[in-house]
Amino acid sequence: MALLTYHDVLSAADRIHHLIAPTPLLTSAVVDELCGREVVVKAENLQLTGSFKARGALNAVAALSPAARGRGVIGASSGNHAQALGLAARHFGAPATVVIPDDAPRTKVQGVEALGARIVTYDRATGRRDEIVHRLAREEYLSVVPSADSHPVIAGAGTVAWEMLRERPDLTAILVPVGGGGLAAGTCLAAAHRAPAVRVIGVEPETADDTRRSLTSGRRVRIPPPVTIADGLGHTRPGDLTFEINQRHLTDIVTVPEELIAEAMAVLWRSYAAVAEPSGAVAFAGLLATADRLPPGPVGVILSGGNVDWPRYKNLLDTAMTRKDSLAHAPAAALLR
Amino acid sequence: MALLTYHDVLSAADRIHHLIAPTPLLTSAVVDELCGREVVVKAENLQLTGSFKARGALNAVAALSPAARGRGVIGASSGNHAQALGLAARHFGAPATVVIPDDAPRTKVQGVEALGARIVTYDRATGRRDEIVHRLAREEYLSVVPSADSHPVIAGAGTVAWEMLRERPDLTAILVPVGGGGLAAGTCLAAAHRAPAVRVIGVEPETADDTRRSLTSGRRVRIPPPVTIADGLGHTRPGDLTFEINQRHLTDIVTVPEELIAEAMAVLWRSYAAVAEPSGAVAFAGLLATADRLPPGPVGVILSGGNVDWPRYKNLLDTAMTRKDSLAHAPAAALLR
Repeated sequence: MALLTYHDVLSAADRIHHLIAPTPLLTSAVVDELCGREVVVKAENLQLTGSFKARGALNAVAALSPAARGRGVIGASSGNHAQALGLAARHFGAPATVVIPDDAPRTKVQGVEALGARIVTYDRATGRRDEIVHRLAREEYLSVVPSADSHPVIAGAGTVAWEMLRERPDLTAILVPVGGGGLAAGTCLAAAHRAPAVRVIGVEPETADDTRRSLTSGRRVRIPPPVTIADGLGHTRPGDLTFEINQRHLTDIVTVPEELIAEAMAVLWRSYAAVAEPSGAVAFAGLLATADRLPPGPVGVILSGGNVDWPRYKNLLDTAMTRKDSLAHAPAAALLR
Repeated sequence: MALLTYHDVLSAADRIHHLIAPTPLLTSAVVDELCGREVVVKAENLQLTGSFKARGALNAVAALSPAARGRGVIGASSGNHAQALGLAARHFGAPATVVIPDDAPRTKVQGVEALGARIVTYDRATGRRDEIVHRLAREEYLSVVPSADSHPVIAGAGTVAWEMLRERPDLTAILVPVGGGGLAAGTCLAAAHRAPAVRVIGVEPETADDTRRSLTSGRRVRIPPPVTIADGLGHTRPGDLTFEINQRHLTDIVTVPEELIAEAMAVLWRSYAAVAEPSGAVAFAGLLATADRLPPGPVGVILSGGNVDWPRYKNLLDTAMTRKDSLAHAPAAALLR
């Protein structure tokens, strides 16, 4: 299969530009001082459907023939890709089916329902997700739109970093969350051409480190279904295409403990007035973990999504805020020296 | 004194453009369906210092002579103008003094400290604020930068609506929170020239309705120090300049109960991934209260700020979320028909 290139990202940007929300780069003087460098946060929590996934899904459905769209699309997702696919299908007049774990956040399921997609649930522990998708696709002649491991989805995801580097070509590093690896792979493609010197650093939850293990082994490793608050990153194995790209281009991969993800959510709330879901805060947690080891110069962080149920959000921020040394309530004066 | 005009807003936009953050217009398909129209939310919670106040303060300090800047600036504020003045003073190398009530939110006080401003506190109940400001200004030769009632501050605040109407000239109404009245007055100036047909609707907390009462009486009425969760809107009397402009140009003024402000904060969290402080959510509460009475067509809402302490934020959202009929967790599918 032909390799994806920067040109595919550029085409995706051209194709979806008028369909997506222009998301800002957020800044905070307090965080800049704390990290000893300028930090810009790409706010994909403000993207349509509340996550960057809208980009890949729109790009993928746009690429289907009218006949394929008429038969319908299907995808599996912990919730954000499901909403994205619902949006893309609705935009292009295609019926959509999404396969979602039965423990997906309520807010994500509601979003899918609101977009009119058919929902099929499964038990995450049994891992029969792909089986269900492929059976339904076969029986009903549906086109499968993977959440990460497909050309148009990776190219669409790459438009996030493409926009960041267009606005800030001086970034020296970009931190990106790694689940299925599509956002990381897209970021690599965008950076490799536009800013070859920029370091692309993947960030995984400690407990969901399938990509880190796979990069170490040099081949795709499968791990047991991980337990993490970052429900969007609970993958058991890197994608085929995404791993090939990430193995070649990713500068580094770091892992973060669950407490640091909650801490990152609290700092994003406090210093950026931004609502991040746990998966969406993982790259920022990576920043907090590595700020003193990064090269000098401005750094970009991808806040990938903001869909989270209130009870979970409240509990995670409460936990972070009650830690006396939390950065989320450190006296700002001290941080600003 | 010469009247302010649209030209002053234009000059302010020109002067501060490179100093402020470009804030996006947020959208939500769920809210659009709920309100039966397109709603765009101007996210000034993402402005530098976390509120629109940065605009007026930067415009005001920019207008001072180098000698006046060297002597220093002073202002009184419940917290957001204090942070804005701290930022503006730091940018232009001026020493800053801010007079803040002793019950101001901790996050706002920390923001002021971080910016290096001198803090003088007072008891809100005694209302000696202006006395303290003018005594210090006299004794130390400081230039007073009011939080709302001054030409450059109103013109700076007007750049919010100016940006909204530049991006969306088709808006039929703009909802704006009313405290001192500077943001409302600036919005009126921007709208009167660029979009004379647009309705500018001021929104006050029910308990802090000094401007509504004053508009009814035809003269500036003083009310007792109000009790409201919207700490930025607890004014006792409209400003002199701001009232003159608002009396002439404001289409309407509505008031909202405290519960609806909390509800608005919850909907902004849920549907826009946006952190709003109570004062910042008041205009959105006005939308929820009046959506069925507004003229057809797209509506703009100013989310004016996002500085709020976590315990208060958590309690207000908890209250809203536990109401069974809260829009913040109404099944989205129902809203989307």
